[in-house]
This record gives sequence, C-alpha cells and structure tokens, in this order.
Amino acid sequence: PAPVGYYPLLGGKVVDYICGLARVAEFMGTTQPAEVEQSEIGDGNMNLVFICRGPKGAVIVKQALPYVRCVGEGWPLTMERARFEYMALAEEYKHCPQFTPEVYHFDPTLGALVMRYIEPPHIILRQGLIKGYTYSTLAADVATFLARTLFLTSALHLTAPELRQRVAVWSANREMCALTEQVIFTDPYMIREDRNRWTSPQLDAAVARIRGDTQLKLAVAVLKEKFMTSTQALLHGDLHTGSIMVKDGSTFCIDPEFAFYGPMGFDTGAIIANLLLASCSQPGHATAAEPRAAYADWILDQMVALYTGFEQEFLALWSHEANRKGDHTPQGHFAAGPELGLAQSQFMGRLFSDTLGFAGAKMIRRIIGIAHVEDMESIKDPEQRAACERHALAIAHMLVKEPGSFASIADVAALARDQP
Amino acid sequence: PAPVGYYPLLGGKVVDYICGLARVAEFMGTTQPAEVEQSEIGDGNMNLVFICRGPKGAVIVKQALPYVRCVGEGWPLTMERARFEYMALAEEYKHCPQFTPEVYHFDPTLGALVMRYIEPPHIILRQGLIKGYTYSTLAADVATFLARTLFLTSALHLTAPELRQRVAVWSANREMCALTEQVIFTDPYMIREDRNRWTSPQLDAAVARIRGDTQLKLAVAVLKEKFMTSTQALLHGDLHTGSIMVKDGSTFCIDPEFAFYGPMGFDTGAIIANLLLASCSQPGHATAAEPRAAYADWILDQMVALYTGFEQEFLALWSHEANRKGDHTPQGHFAAGPELGLAQSQFMGRLFSDTLGFAGAKMIRRIIGIAHVEDMESIKDPEQRAACERHALAIAHMLVKEPGSFASIADVAALARDQP
Ligand SMILES: Nc1ncnc2c1ncn2[C@@H]1O[C@H](COP(=O)(O)OP(=O)(O)O)[C@@H](O)[C@H]1O
Ligand SMILES: Nc1ncnc2c1ncn2[C@@H]1O[C@H](COP(=O)(O)OP(=O)(O)O)[C@@H](O)[C@H]1O
Ligand SMILES: [Mg+2]
Ligand SMILES: [Mg+2]
Ligand SMILES: [Mg+2]
Ligand SMILES: [Mg+2]
Ligand SMILES: [Mg+2]
Repeated sequence: PAPVGYYPLLGGKVVDYICGLARVAEFMGTTQPAEVEQSEIGDGNMNLVFICRGPKGAVIVKQALPYVRCVGEGWPLTMERARFEYMALAEEYKHCPQFTPEVYHFDPTLGALVMRYIEPPHIILRQGLIKGYTYSTLAADVATFLARTLFLTSALHLTAPELRQRVAVWSANREMCALTEQVIFTDPYMIREDRNRWTSPQLDAAVARIRGDTQLKLAVAVLKEKFMTSTQALLHGDLHTGSIMVKDGSTFCIDPEFAFYGPMGFDTGAIIANLLLASCSQPGHATAAEPRAAYADWILDQMVALYTGFEQEFLALWSHEANRKGDHTPQGHFAAGPELGLAQSQFMGRLFSDTLGFAGAKMIRRIIGIAHVEDMESIKDPEQRAACERHALAIAHMLVKEPGSFASIADVAALARDQP
Repeated sequence: PAPVGYYPLLGGKVVDYICGLARVAEFMGTTQPAEVEQSEIGDGNMNLVFICRGPKGAVIVKQALPYVRCVGEGWPLTMERARFEYMALAEEYKHCPQFTPEVYHFDPTLGALVMRYIEPPHIILRQGLIKGYTYSTLAADVATFLARTLFLTSALHLTAPELRQRVAVWSANREMCALTEQVIFTDPYMIREDRNRWTSPQLDAAVARIRGDTQLKLAVAVLKEKFMTSTQALLHGDLHTGSIMVKDGSTFCIDPEFAFYGPMGFDTGAIIANLLLASCSQPGHATAAEPRAAYADWILDQMVALYTGFEQEFLALWSHEANRKGDHTPQGHFAAGPELGLAQSQFMGRLFSDTLGFAGAKMIRRIIGIAHVEDMESIKDPEQRAACERHALAIAHMLVKEPGSFASIADVAALARDQP
C-alpha cells in the first residue's frame, strides 16, 4: 500500500531529505546535512518520528509506515493517514494555533510531515500524570481546543452543504476508523485471545462479567453505531493523554491521524477517560514520601474544570451571533434568549451523555483490550494494578450503562472519589 | 449550472435523441423518429418527463432542468441530481427489481435517464388514495422495499469501511439535502411569508401555536440534526405517496433524486406521514354515495400493515446469518437468540421513534410549508379542508413531541381514529 517512491527515512536519510526543503532548512539554520543531528524518538507502532536539529533550531519529521511496526509487514495500514493527519493539523491550527504544532511541509509520497518541534520541558501529558506533575492551564487549554475544533467544524457553524462536503472528504479515512471500531467497540466484548489481554488471573472474573453483561453490550452497540454513523464534527479521533504535550502554561495536541467526522462525545470522552484512568492509577504510584491521594484528586478536579470549561466555551461560541451561521439552529428558529438557551441545554445534555458513554467504553478497552495505558502498565505489582483497574472498570460500567444518573461532570468526580 | 452540451429535450428533440440509442430503440421497436410519438407528462417543478412510444413499446425519459420550473431560472438547482437518481435507481433495482423501474440509459450531459415505462393502469398512489381505490399488495410491497433497501445499504449488512465509502459518494448530493432541510425542518418554523402558506384564516391560530411551541421546535431541532448528521442507510429521500406508482398487485417506487445516506426513519416516516395525510383528508372527499369513513380506516390499516411488515422483514434479514456481514452487530458480540433479540429490539425501538418524529415533521410541513399535498389541496371547501388539516396537525404534534407514548404503529392508527 506504500506509494511508488516511498522509502522509510531511516539510517540518516531524514537529514538529506529535509536539507532539501528550503523552508525547513531555514528553521534549522542550515542546508548542510553535516550540520544536522537526527534521532528517532517515535514511541508508537505505526509511525517513525525524528528530531532533526541544526545550528539554529530543531524540527520534527513524522513518517507513516505502511504497516503496524510491532507486528511487522503482516498488518498493513493505509499510508493515506499521513495526509489526514496533515489536513487535521492544518484545520486545528486554523482554530487553535496556540495548541497545535505548525506543519511546515507535507510529502504525500513519503507519507511524511515536517512540523514544529515542541521543545522540552514539554513532555507527553501521560508521563507527567504518572510523575505527579501539575499543570496550571491544562484544563483550560484542552477545554478551548475541544470547544473551538468541535464547534467550528460542526453544523452549528457551517451550512449543511459545507458539512456534507467535509464529510465526503473525511469519510476516506475509513481504514483508521475501522481500527478504532475494532479495538474499542468490538474486540473487548468478544473472545479473541490474540487481541485482548488483562491483568490475569486477578481480572478474569471481571472480564467474564463484561462479556456476559447484556445491558453493557447493548449500550456499547449504541455507541458503536454512533461512531459509525454520526457526522457531528471533525474529531481529533485519538485525543488521549498520550496525544497531548505539556509544560506548565503550555499545551499542544498532536497526532490526529485518526481524524474523521464523528460524534463530538468521542473526543470529549477520550480525554475524560484518560484522566479517570490516570486518577485511578495513582495508588499504584504512591510511595510513603508521596502518597498521591491529593494528586488523584487534583486530576479529578482537572477533569471537572476541563469539561465545565469546554461547555462554557462551546456555548459562548454558539451564543455569539457571528458564529451562528450554521444550519443546525438557524437564526429565527428559536427566539434569542431563553428559547435558544433551551435548545442549547438540550444539545449539551445529549453531548454530555455521549461523552460519558464513550469515556466508559474507552476505559474498558484500555483495561481488557489490546492497547493498555502506561498509567496502569507501569504499576509493577499485579495485585495493586488490578485494584486500580477494578476501580476504573467500576466507574466505566456506570458511565456506559447509566449516563443519565450523572447530572454533571462533578458527579463523575464524586463517584471516582467515593469508590474504594 | 448545466453542463456544456446540455439542452432541454423539448419540442420533439427527445425523439431524435432516443432513436440514436440502440438499446432503447429495441424497446420501442424502431430507430425511425417518424414512428415514435412523444408527450411530456411531468407533473413536477424540477424535471421534464416524456413518454416515447414506438410500434413495439414505450419508454420514459426523465430530464433534470437546471432550475425549479415554477419559479424559472431564478432558482437554480444542481443537475447532478440526475446522476444521483440514476445511481439510486440502480441500487434499488439491485435489491428490489420488482419494485423499481429498470434504467436503460443515463446521459450525464443532458441530465437524462431513459427507463422502463410503468404502464397503465398503474397510477400515482396519491391519486389512487384520493379516488378511494384499494391495493391488495401495497403495504407488503412497500414494506419489502423499505426493509431491503434500508437494511442492505446499512452497517447491519456492510462493513464500516464500505459504509464510509458510500457516505463519501452520496454526501455529494448535498444541494438536494439542503432543499429538504429548508422545506421540512427550517422554513415551517419561521416567519417567511414567501415560503409558507396554509388554509387561512382557518389555520392562522394553529400556525401561530406551532411557531410558539418551544417543545415542538426542540424536538424538530433534534430531527433536523439527525437528518444532517446521521448516515445509517441509503435513503430514497422523497418516499411520499407521489413517488409510488400502483395498480392492484403491483407497486413501483420512482423518483429517488433526493437519495443520500441518512437516518432510516426519514424514509419510513415519509410514507407513514403521507398515509396519515391521506386518511385525514378522506372526509373532504366523502359524498353521500361514498362516505369514505371505512376507506379512511382502510388507509390506517395499510399503514399498520406496512410498518409491521417492514419491521418483520427487516428483522428477518438481520437474523439471516448470510446477511449479518456488517460491522454494526458483529457475529460473536451478542449470543444468537435472546441476546441478539434484545439488540434488535433496541434498534427497532429507536427506529420506530425516529419514524414517528420524521412522520410528524413531514405532516406539518405539508400543511403549513411551501409544498402541500393534493389529498388536502383538492378539498375545495376551506372549512372542510381546515378540519382535515387540523386533525392531521393534532396527530403530527403527538408524533413529534411524544413519540415515546406510542408502543406500536397500531397506537398511531388508534390516535388517528380517535380524533374528531
Ligand atoms: N511536534 C512534536 N514535537 C515534539 N515531540 C513530538 C512531536 N510530535 C511527536 N513527538 C514525539 O513523538 C512521539 C510520537 O508521536 P505521535 O505523533 O504521537 O506518533 P504516533 O502516531 O506513532 O503515536 C510523541 O509521543 C512525542 O513524544
Ligand atoms: N417510469 C415511469 N413510468 C410511468 N410514468 C412515470 C415514470 N416516471 C415518472 N412518471 C410520471 O411522471 C411523473 C413525474 O415523475 P417524477 O419522477 O416523480 O418527477 P419529479 O422528480 O419531477 O417529481 C410521475 O408522477 C409519473 O406520473
Ligand atoms: Mg497513539
Ligand atoms: Mg501518538
Ligand atoms: Mg498516532
Ligand atoms: Mg416526483
Ligand atoms: Mg422528484
């Protein structure tokens, strides 16, 4: 599936490649390969990520591999995802330049993007949460990112024909969507030992209960259908804490190769799920010197601040006349003021319910599916890890099966605090 | 917006045109223009429809006009709809050849389709219902058409990537969708005297009540969002009683130029709405010799039989192993038998609720919006017409605002019978 002319930029080839790009050479301060240092820092399974550093500065080169790396060439993966990542970064940069790495160059043949290097001390948020770091603007920044990218790409802001035109384009990222459908909504609920794993034997009974929980599976089926057939907004599509880079006061969302037109709650749910997993994992990272109980609470506070901030900013965009150009709720349909407010509440209520459902489904798959999270995986003692995972599973069950029992995101935090 | 080379096939040009098409000439039994009679029989605003009759047989030529005919060139309309009508007829013919006119030829430059002539005594169903005719297979035939076209084009039968590929294609029929969005979901709820009309002054108060009914408008907003952002199945898109041709024992669905990937309930709701309108209009067609009360009941019986049959056939398709290839409810996710049965009930329950909502919205727009139905329009006495329309509006209110109060389609028939 690789285009003619494709080659991996390994073995130093990345340096020759980018020295040939005038705009990129400018950022590095040289066109001389000898003056550029490179290293591959990718931590994923599907892509190569290089830092290239010249005398003046560094850039990142991200290149798609035509197969899933850990499995080898036996699991091919569309190279087109690089183009979608490029398009998504461009769209996100338009709405949120402060939270999106600027793309300097895209090469369709190589499936490669050259982009801004998000410099240290930025680290991946998941690592920060494992280390116990706090970030003063994280919640507000992600709230803004979500509110702007979701609102401004939806029919709340666009005409229906504009929306359908975009849906046509993004529907082509269907192979990446299929991967998501399989790993989140399908495999965890089936007996597929090659694709599922969990802390065993500690969670064996819990997994059996999930597979036999008809009400849970019915709720997941509705979420899956929504994922497959709802085109509310352009989603990041993979917005977990491993796709966010942070230092105090600065936040970037990276890696939108799964972007597509889908239900908004899938993106908001992704970050909620990963914050809950991070919070539930804290007992596993506690030491006598650093008990982590207060930190687990801090993460829940961030979750509440993030979703509350998201709702506020989303509604602020919606209430601003200039943004209400979309066909969803045309001017004149609802009288401004209380009547529009009711339409907004109705929409936000449904979005909250979707958010909780998708969050729960994502938590479950990270505990019993193929791809786990380091927050839990890095807990060495299996009894301790299983206890954290059980706590997370109990919350997830409620989120998926009883979203209506939560009046607000604060109720979710309360449940997470209550649980043993 | 017409392609280079486009010309309307008026003034006899249609004859020269089809005599040049070998396959079509075969149906007519001649290639000689002198042996072909033509007449324009189109009753719509946007297309020309010709019958061309040769010594052996007749064919229909349907040609898109680049503007809405009644308004003139001031309201241009995409010619691409002819291509979508062609594609939709091809897809429907694949699933239901017995209910779909075969297309013999498609000409993208002229926006013209040549298709099977549905011969007399077939007439448009709406005319039959105004005349008081009965049809013994109508309900079963439309049930089958809906079950097969909706199921077989959805993720119940297709993989998610197959679905997304089709969504990409059909999203391009966005101008036709925009027309639907405007006339069904937007204009009727706004003050737009150029685009709305109703039996006045009789219905003035009812219309004012609709415009001020916040709960109704909130429910319509949810339906509109579903229309804009749900891609469950390939819909006919305009399946009212004017798009069905019938004689006793034979049924054809024509005119799918509005086809797109949308929520299934929009198609099922269209036919339910138009049967309810037909039933409610019967007092206006009654005479001493032909009281029509029993006939109004018969129409409601057809509605019940149609929707019940639809549900049965849809579920039969779903329960047939060979059809369950779709990603929606994969084999192994739900144990066959009672567990799959619950997933199916859940799906059918949501579809029923959508059906009622869309049916109600369509009834409202046919009474207070731009395009009315002949069932009501042909009632000369405005008092009598207003009474029929009020009855329909009362049902529509319930369908849109309280779909949950109907346990089955029989409850809808009961409500229609109860009302004064
Ligand atoms: N623009 C960037 N600046 C700095 N580091 C980056 C940048 N993009 C990616 N990285 C690093 O590379 C890792 C993998 O990148 P990512 O885009 O998440 O690839 P993948 O799709 O393979 O997960 C990230 O976790 C991060 O550590
Ligand atoms: N295949 C056909 N056989 C016989 N009559 C047809 C056929 N197609 C259309 N007609 C007649 O032409 C009329 C208009 O066709 P239709 O496809 O509904 O056009 P429009 O999109 O303009 O409504 C129909 O109501 C019907 O009377
Ligand atoms: Mg990843
Ligand atoms: Mg990543
Ligand atoms: Mg990635
Ligand atoms: Mg028609
Ligand atoms: Mg038509």
